[in-house]
Amino acid sequence: MPETLNVAVAGYAFMGRIHTAGWAQAAKFFGTPARVTHVIGRNRKNTQAFADAFGIPNVLADWRDAVADPDIHVVDVCTPGDSHVDIAIGALEAGKHVLCEKPLANSVAGAERMVAAAEAASARGVRSMAGFSYRRTPALAYAKRLVDEGRIGEIRHIRAVYLQDWIADPEFPLVWRLDKDAAGSGALGDIGAHIIDLATFLTGQRLTGLTGITETFVKTRPKLAEQTGGLTARGSEERGEVTVDDAAVWVGRTDGGALATFEATRFAAGRKNAMRIELNGSKGSLAFDFERMNELEFLDFTEPAVESGFRRILVTEPEHPYVGAWWPAGHGLGYEHTFTHEVKDFTDAIVEGRAPEPSFADGLAVQKILAAIEDSRGDWVTL
Amino acid sequence: MPETLNVAVAGYAFMGRIHTAGWAQAAKFFGTPARVTHVIGRNRKNTQAFADAFGIPNVLADWRDAVADPDIHVVDVCTPGDSHVDIAIGALEAGKHVLCEKPLANSVAGAERMVAAAEAASARGVRSMAGFSYRRTPALAYAKRLVDEGRIGEIRHIRAVYLQDWIADPEFPLVWRLDKDAAGSGALGDIGAHIIDLATFLTGQRLTGLTGITETFVKTRPKLAEQTGGLTARGSEERGEVTVDDAAVWVGRTDGGALATFEATRFAAGRKNAMRIELNGSKGSLAFDFERMNELEFLDFTEPAVESGFRRILVTEPEHPYVGAWWPAGHGLGYEHTFTHEVKDFTDAIVEGRAPEPSFADGLAVQKILAAIEDSRGDWVTL
Amino acid sequence: MPETLNVAVAGYAFMGRIHTAGWAQAAKFFGTPARVTHVIGRNRKNTQAFADAFGIPNVLADWRDAVADPDIHVVDVCTPGDSHVDIAIGALEAGKHVLCEKPLANSVAGAERMVAAAEAASARGVRSMAGFSYRRTPALAYAKRLVDEGRIGEIRHIRAVYLQDWIADPEFPLVWRLDKDAAGSGALGDIGAHIIDLATFLTGQRLTGLTGITETFVKTRPKLAEQTGGLTARGSEERGEVTVDDAAVWVGRTDGGALATFEATRFAAGRKNAMRIELNGSKGSLAFDFERMNELEFLDFTEPAVESGFRRILVTEPEHPYVGAWWPAGHGLGYEHTFTHEVKDFTDAIVEGRAPEPSFADGLAVQKILAAIEDSRGDWVTL
Amino acid sequence: MPETLNVAVAGYAFMGRIHTAGWAQAAKFFGTPARVTHVIGRNRKNTQAFADAFGIPNVLADWRDAVADPDIHVVDVCTPGDSHVDIAIGALEAGKHVLCEKPLANSVAGAERMVAAAEAASARGVRSMAGFSYRRTPALAYAKRLVDEGRIGEIRHIRAVYLQDWIADPEFPLVWRLDKDAAGSGALGDIGAHIIDLATFLTGQRLTGLTGITETFVKTRPKLAEQTGGLTARGSEERGEVTVDDAAVWVGRTDGGALATFEATRFAAGRKNAMRIELNGSKGSLAFDFERMNELEFLDFTEPAVESGFRRILVTEPEHPYVGAWWPAGHGLGYEHTFTHEVKDFTDAIVEGRAPEPSFADGLAVQKILAAIEDSRGDWVTL
Repeated sequence: MPETLNVAVAGYAFMGRIHTAGWAQAAKFFGTPARVTHVIGRNRKNTQAFADAFGIPNVLADWRDAVADPDIHVVDVCTPGDSHVDIAIGALEAGKHVLCEKPLANSVAGAERMVAAAEAASARGVRSMAGFSYRRTPALAYAKRLVDEGRIGEIRHIRAVYLQDWIADPEFPLVWRLDKDAAGSGALGDIGAHIIDLATFLTGQRLTGLTGITETFVKTRPKLAEQTGGLTARGSEERGEVTVDDAAVWVGRTDGGALATFEATRFAAGRKNAMRIELNGSKGSLAFDFERMNELEFLDFTEPAVESGFRRILVTEPEHPYVGAWWPAGHGLGYEHTFTHEVKDFTDAIVEGRAPEPSFADGLAVQKILAAIEDSRGDWVTL
Repeated sequence: MPETLNVAVAGYAFMGRIHTAGWAQAAKFFGTPARVTHVIGRNRKNTQAFADAFGIPNVLADWRDAVADPDIHVVDVCTPGDSHVDIAIGALEAGKHVLCEKPLANSVAGAERMVAAAEAASARGVRSMAGFSYRRTPALAYAKRLVDEGRIGEIRHIRAVYLQDWIADPEFPLVWRLDKDAAGSGALGDIGAHIIDLATFLTGQRLTGLTGITETFVKTRPKLAEQTGGLTARGSEERGEVTVDDAAVWVGRTDGGALATFEATRFAAGRKNAMRIELNGSKGSLAFDFERMNELEFLDFTEPAVESGFRRILVTEPEHPYVGAWWPAGHGLGYEHTFTHEVKDFTDAIVEGRAPEPSFADGLAVQKILAAIEDSRGDWVTL
Repeated sequence: MPETLNVAVAGYAFMGRIHTAGWAQAAKFFGTPARVTHVIGRNRKNTQAFADAFGIPNVLADWRDAVADPDIHVVDVCTPGDSHVDIAIGALEAGKHVLCEKPLANSVAGAERMVAAAEAASARGVRSMAGFSYRRTPALAYAKRLVDEGRIGEIRHIRAVYLQDWIADPEFPLVWRLDKDAAGSGALGDIGAHIIDLATFLTGQRLTGLTGITETFVKTRPKLAEQTGGLTARGSEERGEVTVDDAAVWVGRTDGGALATFEATRFAAGRKNAMRIELNGSKGSLAFDFERMNELEFLDFTEPAVESGFRRILVTEPEHPYVGAWWPAGHGLGYEHTFTHEVKDFTDAIVEGRAPEPSFADGLAVQKILAAIEDSRGDWVTL
Repeated sequence: MPETLNVAVAGYAFMGRIHTAGWAQAAKFFGTPARVTHVIGRNRKNTQAFADAFGIPNVLADWRDAVADPDIHVVDVCTPGDSHVDIAIGALEAGKHVLCEKPLANSVAGAERMVAAAEAASARGVRSMAGFSYRRTPALAYAKRLVDEGRIGEIRHIRAVYLQDWIADPEFPLVWRLDKDAAGSGALGDIGAHIIDLATFLTGQRLTGLTGITETFVKTRPKLAEQTGGLTARGSEERGEVTVDDAAVWVGRTDGGALATFEATRFAAGRKNAMRIELNGSKGSLAFDFERMNELEFLDFTEPAVESGFRRILVTEPEHPYVGAWWPAGHGLGYEHTFTHEVKDFTDAIVEGRAPEPSFADGLAVQKILAAIEDSRGDWVTL
């Protein structure tokens, strides 16, 4: 084990940027022994500019070069989903630890190949992790602790939504996230994947069956003059077909006997990043909304009803997960901290020789549920 | 038309009590020309005690006596669901206007007979209305006005839950509401019916298909020493079978192209009466929670995003529906006011010779959806 | 003691109306043995119309006639403050129990005379109560119970505001509440009186000194064509002087060692009836906002910080004060219920031969604080 | 002007740490041309450990060495208040730009000397700024924009509190912040200073007079075994005197005709960092709570009351101040971002040759108000 892990980040857009910042913050605030030494991007000029701004010494145009470089210990895959399979498997086979953004792949078959590679690599001590960063939100990590301690008892209901509105305007252009080839699916894979993973993470239960439907409200959109990948650019007059879902809703049962409801949409006007999950159990309830990510609501059903109520816990105490490394109570964290915590946990597992969580197998399980939802078309699918 | 309508209320428990109070308040605050002159109940002593407390001059043991009494103009049916068909049809045939609590009947067949009777009566100027009182919540009546004015545009999402927790404790006894013969169904018919009606009321759209599942988490419960109908009594050691659902979840599509999700449960620890509905449209969103019944959240998506946000409208202005009759701005109303508004509207329709809404046919439509949910078992049902 | 107390209500505007409705509801829901038999009003036609709508058998033009009538047992004073002294003292001397709306009088001297009359009457078993109805809000009555049980420990901070906005528009007309002769003072006496009373009620502590300032932001307003007393009428072009305060702010110390801050204003745009009070103690905190009157926030500081948070108690459980007489959990009450509870408590005290609270002396204590605030002009006043 | 400014940070505790992180993030996300090259701390070992973790190449034991070093362009003063005067003046006289944490000094006299030095330096193009970082919260910067645009009209009320609870436990030890010699004052200077600055920042108005009181609820506390400066350490059995205030409350008038109320306390059980400010104007209102720092509530009083309400603006849109450099809408920022924005703005001003805000003179104005509050003891003080 080297004293410091050298990390190559593939991609420098939204995810690449936030991962790179996360690695630097983890080193400062958690003493995580890792640093980003390489960034990989096809556009030389943009990649170099990014490297300069973020203080990354090396720039690579092709991920294969990173895989071949013996001085790189970790590959952090932040590219669009269609490239995940090749990069992740390539890196694992070359003995690099791999952190891969979600969704794992654009198809179940691809994800299965990645799991196989991860398991083979694991036998050689090479670690892999799927990038469901929301697990590292302090409030959600603390929620899981409360569930594990039995504070909400036997779980009856899981109620999860992920509501955004960034394409509710029919004139928003045809960005890559609306193209099935590049993105795999729409709201389902992009944000639905998160609430599927979270439900499993928090409850330890898996869906045994589900039924659901998807919808594309706006069938065509203005094409981009060039494929910029930007989310805010305005399009041309020519329109192209939207080939992914705008929204998906599904309900199911878990192996723990709970009923679960889910909704993922990019058409909830006014909801910007409302990833909400509520759990109702025999002894209590928990509720969370990412738009208020520093808060967790907890209802202790064992208290007398007369003095019981959902309590707004500010998850900013030093005893809360991850928080001790940061600021005094009441001084909240932001979205990017979840990535700092993610790379810290990933590195800890590498250093300590443990399998990090969530595994690629966990990512595959999510992928299979995404596929089942697409297949369901309103009929029951047993998982 | 008599100067004042004489009303016979059938039942004096929760619903009978709140209806009776509503008739008196409507007379005072809206000048509604009606008064409760009779209460009908099988237990003579309890019925008389209720009549004394609420100032009702006459007590009847059998609804047939009310139907036969020419001085009674209105029958207000507040008994459990298994008696609705007989009382409502009997009253309509005798020329009494009928307000009937929801759900209309314990079966679709029963509800269909009631609709037939209502339509026949209507031809003779005899009015009928289904008691979905939540429509008369000022905030919801105002929400409908905003929808009708096009303020939220084309509706994309309907998201409705009705969450309670009063039987989450497995030792809560086997009250009549948990018995299929008396109650028809469980959470589904009791509270699910409300959110089905509300979704239709607010959007003017109907479900064209759905898929859903129901669950009974606690299969047996302590029997009551005697069937008291009370909600809080504790049971004996002998346990009986729960024959209704504890919870139901379903998703569907509407004839307006929206996706809709629903959940009704009595197992959401800490949620006391959380009837929540959110609508997301192309021009805005609306959100409501009955636990904060004097508030409506409205998001105007036509505003610049930079200054846009869900605004908490206190629905207590004189210009809001029903509110002008009550108190100054900011001085909220309570649950019972919805019934005062309901009987006011019903009486207005009678006096003005209009068909009141929601009609028995509207109630039947809800009933059919309830039946479809029970039939679905996770597969698609076209309505 | 008569079987049923006959009540004469003086005034039929906002307060008279809500009191009258309260008496009727108290009889129905609490079995309170009292009924409104007389209403007193100078405008014969309007008074009769009110009596007809609310089912009051007798109408009187002069309160002296009520005082002289041996069949009247209670006088409920709901007129503007300038008439309180005469009516209340006249009624008490005639042996009538008196409920008097706040503020007790328009001057300390007047209030002192009322207290003297009340004490003399009390010796003869004649009861009197000041109408600080907010004490009867279930959430506030429950807050007091928690304070009395020591749940928040030694009180450090009292933080109370009463925010309204109904005259924030400079063109709102010169209604009687803006005239010192009729109203005594402005926001201070109208709404500031409530938070002074509540702070004392909840904590059992009294201010020992204070410093504060008042302001009249809008010095002249359109005169009303005729003095209608209405709050919404628009005025003429002629303007008259506003002779009361628009807002007042003050801070002080209590005999229990707490710091207290207060604000009363009619110029808080968007705040309709935000009577808010928060108490911070050594063992916990309580927070309340009348715009969400069915909720109480409680923080238990003895819990570990990691799982501690302000819990939103829905004060709608049968065990909460007054609530058992009403509806199931989660079905909230409204503003007018505080008056139903007030007349119930008042009648209970009469029947049981106890002195009701708050007494006229309590009302006088509030009056003295109001006077001290007006006198302070930013300098310390020892009480 | 060098291409990149070299920054020496004095202090490596809470403030030094967050400033250092801020400089690095500003470079990455805003391209701010500055980097921390030196950290100054008396404890060599701890300072070196900090430098290692945060990647700072040089460590200095004495600020005089930094002042003497021609390669250092900026001194960022993050030490306790008793050292501010010497360091800041020394640095300014040596031609270093100075960012100085608040409060500027522990006395008005000290602050006055700093202002004189800053003005002299300014004539030579040397910049200085007081570190009221909360001004750089996007929601508050946006609030100021709305005020400046006239969206809330003429301001009637300023209502600001800063509530914490970290010393509410009487056994919390006697840390340096409770010692007048080291800290200058207690809650007043530590957190009260922030709300004074914010009120001025947001409204552009200054207090013309005030009256207020302070309190020390817990007079003695356990001494620390050694003066660690830590906030969480538990003390010994020996108790020492608390020489600063625990809480302060004051009210005043502004030169714009508004009434203002303020409260700063460390005894508000359950409030962790509740810096709240509300402004009520003739055309609207604004409300903010730092515990929900990504939200701003705005009430547009020019809208019809029927559809008006406080809207919760998620201040996470690219058009909001500072936000464009970060993440997509709905992905909130944290406390530390305010420091990143602060050093960015400071550097921008240096580069562009402008005087940054808030100036030392602004800091002195706050200091004078703090002194006036301490002097008031409940009597009016004209400013």
